[in-house]
Amino acid sequence: MSEAVRVLLDESRIPRNWYNIVADLPAPPPPPLHPDTLQPVGPDDLAPLFPMELIAQEAGSERFVAIPQSVRDVYRLWRPTPLIRARRLERDLGTPAKIYYKYEGGSPSGSHKPNTAVPQAYYNAREGIRRLTTETGAGQWGSALAFACAQYGIECEIWMVRASYDQKPHRRSLMRMYGATVHASPSPVTAAGSRILADHPDSPGSLGIAISEAVEVAGADPEVRYALGSVLNHVLLHQTVIGEEALEQMAAFGEVPDLIVGCAGGGSNFAGLTFPFLREKLAGRMNPVIRAIEPEACPSLTRGTYAYDFGDAAGLTPLLKMHTLGHDFVPDPIHAGGLRYHGMSPLLSHVYELGLFEAAARGQTECFEAGLRFARTEGIIPAPEPAHALAEVVAEALRCKETGEPKVLLTALCGHGHFDMNAYDRYLSGEMEDLSLPQEQIDTALAGLPTL
Amino acid sequence: MSEAVRVLLDESRIPRNWYNIVADLPAPPPPPLHPDTLQPVGPDDLAPLFPMELIAQEAGSERFVAIPQSVRDVYRLWRPTPLIRARRLERDLGTPAKIYYKYEGGSPSGSHKPNTAVPQAYYNAREGIRRLTTETGAGQWGSALAFACAQYGIECEIWMVRASYDQKPHRRSLMRMYGATVHASPSPVTAAGSRILADHPDSPGSLGIAISEAVEVAGADPEVRYALGSVLNHVLLHQTVIGEEALEQMAAFGEVPDLIVGCAGGGSNFAGLTFPFLREKLAGRMNPVIRAIEPEACPSLTRGTYAYDFGDAAGLTPLLKMHTLGHDFVPDPIHAGGLRYHGMSPLLSHVYELGLFEAAARGQTECFEAGLRFARTEGIIPAPEPAHALAEVVAEALRCKETGEPKVLLTALCGHGHFDMNAYDRYLSGEMEDLSLPQEQIDTALAGLPTL
Repeated sequence: MSEAVRVLLDESRIPRNWYNIVADLPAPPPPPLHPDTLQPVGPDDLAPLFPMELIAQEAGSERFVAIPQSVRDVYRLWRPTPLIRARRLERDLGTPAKIYYKYEGGSPSGSHKPNTAVPQAYYNAREGIRRLTTETGAGQWGSALAFACAQYGIECEIWMVRASYDQKPHRRSLMRMYGATVHASPSPVTAAGSRILADHPDSPGSLGIAISEAVEVAGADPEVRYALGSVLNHVLLHQTVIGEEALEQMAAFGEVPDLIVGCAGGGSNFAGLTFPFLREKLAGRMNPVIRAIEPEACPSLTRGTYAYDFGDAAGLTPLLKMHTLGHDFVPDPIHAGGLRYHGMSPLLSHVYELGLFEAAARGQTECFEAGLRFARTEGIIPAPEPAHALAEVVAEALRCKETGEPKVLLTALCGHGHFDMNAYDRYLSGEMEDLSLPQEQIDTALAGLPTL
Repeated sequence: MSEAVRVLLDESRIPRNWYNIVADLPAPPPPPLHPDTLQPVGPDDLAPLFPMELIAQEAGSERFVAIPQSVRDVYRLWRPTPLIRARRLERDLGTPAKIYYKYEGGSPSGSHKPNTAVPQAYYNAREGIRRLTTETGAGQWGSALAFACAQYGIECEIWMVRASYDQKPHRRSLMRMYGATVHASPSPVTAAGSRILADHPDSPGSLGIAISEAVEVAGADPEVRYALGSVLNHVLLHQTVIGEEALEQMAAFGEVPDLIVGCAGGGSNFAGLTFPFLREKLAGRMNPVIRAIEPEACPSLTRGTYAYDFGDAAGLTPLLKMHTLGHDFVPDPIHAGGLRYHGMSPLLSHVYELGLFEAAARGQTECFEAGLRFARTEGIIPAPEPAHALAEVVAEALRCKETGEPKVLLTALCGHGHFDMNAYDRYLSGEMEDLSLPQEQIDTALAGLPTL
């Protein structure tokens, strides 16, 4: 065996700190605003929903935040994750490029989501919270939070979008295995859900409705709080363990990346991989191109606008300055459920505005094609979300084949696709299609942006 | 972080040899017999079905067999696998016992099966074989062989038992993702399948029928061979990479096991973990108790007989001296599909007769209970097969709690349960039950044993 294929790190190498990129940016990100007063949101506004430690992290500007020992102890179940060189994919493509991927699919719930679910459960448990509520679409986030709550002995109550609840029974089972209570949303257990069911008994639900239900229940009980799996600053902060480990592992390979590619939905996986590399880039220690890949069906960075908007469909959240397609935007039901969010993390949007990374969009059939090629060469079945990044990596590797450039490519394979076999089935049987997204649909949704 | 939780090995530590326990046994195992002549089967008898290198390994008695470099290169995609201490499970049980598990679920197809699928595909490809045929029940073996064939650019054609084909569409999809052709068995593409379909158009199929179909197609074409995923000597040989790595990792933990537990269906997972430890035990370097766990619904070691029997239901294979419930025995449709085989590996049966390990049987509900407890503490969803071993480990750890013994327990978690969520659903909803196995049912099947 010649060159290494995998760099594993000992558990002592689990990062001791999360990295807060705010400390290194030339300008601070615009604050979230209260929709009534249009004033910056303060800790008191958020206290009914989040524990104080997470509220402090949300607004923090310290460069590093120490990871509690208890959280590192749970991280040990799957971290550090491997960094792998895709030698067989390279050979299959006939490319001179070197392809590296950081694999997060070995976590308990099979994605990067537990990286933040665990500290969120920890801080809530430490502050005496008895139960966490959340929403989930395809179920990646819900299963991660259910696992994390089981670790800290607190209850977990999840509103799962009815359409996914019916179509993805196995993710639902996974949440129940970890001990969570799962409701189809809209549900009769909340006022918000009951109102919708009264008018639309067959409503397929939406993330916006599910958020309303989870927030309603959390806000009504001082022993209950709410948890979000992406978008917010503290979520991106927790995900930087991915990039910190990858920095050390790329150094162990003796490599410096020329291009870093990640998929971006709410933005936490992309930020988690790239922020530590951006720190090195801002400090002049490396100069990689950094590229976010979003689905053509939900292109908030490439076709949205940068404006204050609500984080949820119903307009209950603070106003967030972000790249958005409008909170009324309803994307096509593509299989990458984790990329179907109308907005992009405000912090990541700010970094994008600063010109620190670029973005592109890809259609889902080419992503599944790349996912299939990856499975047959590297063995791992990628989730549909990181398959978007793989499509970009494959395209870049083929460009290198034409030019002869031996570029070093790095991507995040943020989850496995074992619960997405229906989607691969559709691709294999030729039933999957790419629908175009008319500009008119975006314009209509953007017309619904709140006026400040 | 105090004591280590995971011992990872660098890829240079992938074993260089498979271990053949035959070299160290006080007596050689009884040979397979030709059913017509009752004479030992020779290489010529097997040549239509297997490549010469595997035939040589099947009959070999050398202590070590070098692992080809090409095979080690593919192993690098997931090997060495981690050895993990289940600290959170220990705490949950309140036991003074230390629980270690070797986790094989990180392989491409999610189980230990690729350990033998890869060398089988390699030797066939090297001998110019164009296509491999096989049968699969629940699909663990079929997906492993499909992956391995994709690595060596040979075709893979799989007969999947009709009942599983219909009930487990996601394992079927996985095989297709890896490029295999999958038939529901009985199928109209073989004479054997056509005959059955003519009489029983709605036949749910059986492993015996699927074997007949795969063997028929392989035997009829000199460029096609057949592959088996358990039972045979060369399969057990390949699986010893599990135990060899575990030996090194237990030493790194500074531990010597007091008890080693594995689930046993055809026997390859159990032998793979335990044979290297048995070598050390036979040499007097350690003295662990070694225990095989089989399902109460298919107890070939604990309630079967030791006799020459056919390996398949239709009586096409050589006669194998093994612990068997009779080749006519049809076990209840328990969810641990990998443990539903009427016989036990002849080599493993011989080792059992030599008194080198013990066996016990467990019912499936207690196994799913242990699997659920494991998931909530350790994060990983176990497949139903290794959940049988976990049930034994939990019981032993609770015994240690009573006696205060700080025993060191080691088990093989040979696969994840991501494709078994229907089974966990049934358990969670209280629909799973344990059926008793009347002695009369065993006696009837044993009455059909061939007479020598």
